[in-house]
Amino acid sequence: MDPVFDEVTAASRRIAGIVRPLTVIEADADLAPTGTISLALEFLQHTGSFKARGAANLVAALLETDRMPRTGIVSATGGNADIGFAWAARRLGVPATVFLSRSTSPAKVRRVRELGAEVRVTGATKAEARQAARRFQDDTGAIDAYTHDDTLTSAGAGTILLELAAARPDLDTVICAVGAGGMFSGIASVAQKLGIRVVGAEPEGSQALHAALVAGTVREVEIDSIASDSLGASRVSPAALAWAETADNASVVVDDAAIINARWQLWQNHRLAVEHGSATALAALFSGAYRPQPGEQIGIVLCGANTDPADLAS
Amino acid sequence: MDPVFDEVTAASRRIAGIVRPLTVIEADADLAPTGTISLALEFLQHTGSFKARGAANLVAALLETDRMPRTGIVSATGGNADIGFAWAARRLGVPATVFLSRSTSPAKVRRVRELGAEVRVTGATKAEARQAARRFQDDTGAIDAYTHDDTLTSAGAGTILLELAAARPDLDTVICAVGAGGMFSGIASVAQKLGIRVVGAEPEGSQALHAALVAGTVREVEIDSIASDSLGASRVSPAALAWAETADNASVVVDDAAIINARWQLWQNHRLAVEHGSATALAALFSGAYRPQPGEQIGIVLCGANTDPADLAS
Repeated sequence: MDPVFDEVTAASRRIAGIVRPLTVIEADADLAPTGTISLALEFLQHTGSFKARGAANLVAALLETDRMPRTGIVSATGGNADIGFAWAARRLGVPATVFLSRSTSPAKVRRVRELGAEVRVTGATKAEARQAARRFQDDTGAIDAYTHDDTLTSAGAGTILLELAAARPDLDTVICAVGAGGMFSGIASVAQKLGIRVVGAEPEGSQALHAALVAGTVREVEIDSIASDSLGASRVSPAALAWAETADNASVVVDDAAIINARWQLWQNHRLAVEHGSATALAALFSGAYRPQPGEQIGIVLCGANTDPADLAS
Repeated sequence: MDPVFDEVTAASRRIAGIVRPLTVIEADADLAPTGTISLALEFLQHTGSFKARGAANLVAALLETDRMPRTGIVSATGGNADIGFAWAARRLGVPATVFLSRSTSPAKVRRVRELGAEVRVTGATKAEARQAARRFQDDTGAIDAYTHDDTLTSAGAGTILLELAAARPDLDTVICAVGAGGMFSGIASVAQKLGIRVVGAEPEGSQALHAALVAGTVREVEIDSIASDSLGASRVSPAALAWAETADNASVVVDDAAIINARWQLWQNHRLAVEHGSATALAALFSGAYRPQPGEQIGIVLCGANTDPADLAS
């Protein structure tokens, strides 16, 4: 199953000094009345999310193996990954062209431009922007960062657990949110090697992984959740499904009210302002969707903070 | 000058396991184009600010020496310190009574109540609430946490630099915001011992320390700054003035625009949502009010995040 552990350790070497190291803090009794919870503050990462890790690994790997064309990379994911790829390209001195649909928020268009990418606003929908990106790829030879190699981006995200486990060697379980499953797979490949359980947490209204597990195969799901801006994948990757079926890994779902509550608790008790997607991992604990054993050492990956903090005002 | 270094090391022993340990991260080139900047994330502290350290030290010291009356402590600072004292009292099992004026925000009244203190809403102004607190002290023997011992609260705050310097042994300079100067004095007493320079940063419209330095004596200043909710002291403590005059310590002022910009940069580049008072320390660097030497290792104390994050929305 992808990625294999060695791909994550290779990613770790490749992106060292490029991405920010993981900061880990302890949640105390205010947040965690029982047990030990470590919070992995990956949202402090460049671009405000873990996407920078996978993007940096992909770009660095292509450069390392002389596979990067002079036209660089093209991205049209429609999500935060565009920002990650734009950042990684600039950081490593590679041209990036990002196709965004006309429905993209002005804030995102501005952010991608600030990061030095060439932005082409094209098409009414994400799908049309993606078509334009594919034509650009055909015409110029630029590499489509989104489809080129899922394993490299997934392995980049998996480095989070290498760093978390180094900081907390007694970790039993890591809980992370799941969108399309790239981070989940990367983390699972490390977890398997280290004997750690992975719990994938999804909103009820964005449960591509959980629905696939129930059905026994990848299937399309409807998206309707407060966390859909950062999670919100209608299909999970086959690798993520395979990892969820492995060993004693688990998949849980939580409702939006639990997500909103967990996000509020993080602000109220720790002054951490994270996106709803990140809070989904903590909500798995608070809601009882995942019930740890007494003494179980839990790590929560807070993977992004590309959020509007306005609704945290008291 | 107060506090002496030994009082800070005593505070460190007393509050260990009660307050949260300091988290330190590196700012990278996005935030610090030249030089090395470490960010001390003290706003992750209980109650969202460093006030918890001084409050815990005061309460623990009184308990340790059998000087805590059964009626506990009374607080009427009008500032965030009320929250700190309420928290420390509950944490250490001591009654706390907090007098708040009728002009206090409902959010603060609620927060102090949530922390288990008995709240008495009294008087139209802070001064009237303080009078009521003094009467309560006279009647009950409760200890006025605000006036009882500045040195203990200041020494508690000084532990921040003990932890920062342990994490960054090469630190040359630490920059912190200054209100009435309690944290500044505590930090300065550690800095002197360790050979570190302290720079006190104040808003132009809240410069009790800087004005005292210029005048050569403590004097009253007008308060008009975006950071006045957390800084905003009209007089600085004599100890703070003395520390500012010591060795190569420095005092700088920055305008509100620089504070707003620094706070925004912290959110934009690091997803840290801090109060304007905290951002004042970083603004001292960005504005050029403090100009480090090449290679100078700087620590920035981000001391609080009791802020409305709504204005960080992009």
